[in-house]
Amino acid sequence: MREIFKQIPLYRLIMYCNETNMEKSVLDCGAGGDCPPLSLFEEYGYLTKGIEFNFEQLEKANKYANKKGQNLNIENGDMRKLKFNNESFSFGYSYNSVFHMTKKEILKSINEMNRVLKKDGLLFVNFLTINDFRCGDGVDIGEKQYEQMDDDFPVIHSYFEECEAEKYFEDMEILYKENRVLERIFEGKKVRQGFVDYILKKVKWDIFLYISFLYIITLDY
Amino acid sequence: MREIFKQIPLYRLIMYCNETNMEKSVLDCGAGGDCPPLSLFEEYGYLTKGIEFNFEQLEKANKYANKKGQNLNIENGDMRKLKFNNESFSFGYSYNSVFHMTKKEILKSINEMNRVLKKDGLLFVNFLTINDFRCGDGVDIGEKQYEQMDDDFPVIHSYFEECEAEKYFEDMEILYKENRVLERIFEGKKVRQGFVDYILKKVKWDIFLYISFLYIITLDY
Repeated sequence: MREIFKQIPLYRLIMYCNETNMEKSVLDCGAGGDCPPLSLFEEYGYLTKGIEFNFEQLEKANKYANKKGQNLNIENGDMRKLKFNNESFSFGYSYNSVFHMTKKEILKSINEMNRVLKKDGLLFVNFLTINDFRCGDGVDIGEKQYEQMDDDFPVIHSYFEECEAEKYFEDMEILYKENRVLERIFEGKKVRQGFVDYILKKVKWDIFLYISFLYIITLDY
Repeated sequence: MREIFKQIPLYRLIMYCNETNMEKSVLDCGAGGDCPPLSLFEEYGYLTKGIEFNFEQLEKANKYANKKGQNLNIENGDMRKLKFNNESFSFGYSYNSVFHMTKKEILKSINEMNRVLKKDGLLFVNFLTINDFRCGDGVDIGEKQYEQMDDDFPVIHSYFEECEAEKYFEDMEILYKENRVLERIFEGKKVRQGFVDYILKKVKWDIFLYISFLYIITLDY
């Protein structure tokens, strides 16, 4: 029996990707953990590539993939500085991941993910919102960024107003946005989490292509 | 290539159902249309049963199932008065469906779905919220219920405040709740929709079982 992947919003991303005619290549930024969603993309016929900053999470993902007999191509990497060429992938995503950085680093990462995406390619990214029950906990480092303890380690959590992250989406069109507040039972307690999810389309050419285009036009005269 | 079902929140329901040890039987109330999600449950090994009030939508679902070589057991029926015995199904759902009735009828339907559910069984149901872009359109029949035109036919749409529907969940525990506002492009225009989704667990015995239990206890003395 195939499993259901707990990263439910990524089913919608696959639906959007399947509706395009683009080559099925996908990059996951923050691809580690014991249930790597790239495995789902692989099941749907995608060429997968993943990067993961944390070695322990990387190890877990590769263990999962080996057990399943899949090669998901997940390696160590940093989404603030991707080692891929411009326009390498049709699709990209970072699920429940970018908000573990400061807002400055998030901007950098989104610019990087945008850079390696092909024109018309799709990007899923989601953010914690100020509706989340942990917003305000921990050491306040300003602008709704907090250093909180996760499993005894200090981890940054950045929280966003409903539309705040949209200033990062230069040259990208919002195809789908979902602002959601969920309540579920976690370790016996009811918790309230807030997320805003986006599916974005890269709409503009990058500046080098644009200059080349102008150059060709000029040559014509 | 398997398809992704557009009723994305039902992937989460399957995940919750798979985590129980209950027999895999599921009832869909409002099971018709050209992409019946019971087909997904069938793929995951569930015994399926569906009812649909509208004959045109019923026809579409059966056409889909025939083409796919599936028998989904969808037939004409009315969720306000289900023709099934008490505690017939482990799982039930009504996706994007109950809010096409008045609030009185919705209460009736939820009571019926609860009745046919086994103890500890799970029920998914979702509601339109007052955040929806169409809330307020059409003929106002009171209590945020409106008669609106869908494909040239008048159809009731009932809209709910965030917690309003919870008064219907007698003897049911909320395992998961998601209040979501989504923006997407529909027929070339950006639309804003509001939903609140629930996964509920039937926790109490029904009154007849309770009386039988008391009767047996009494006999013991």
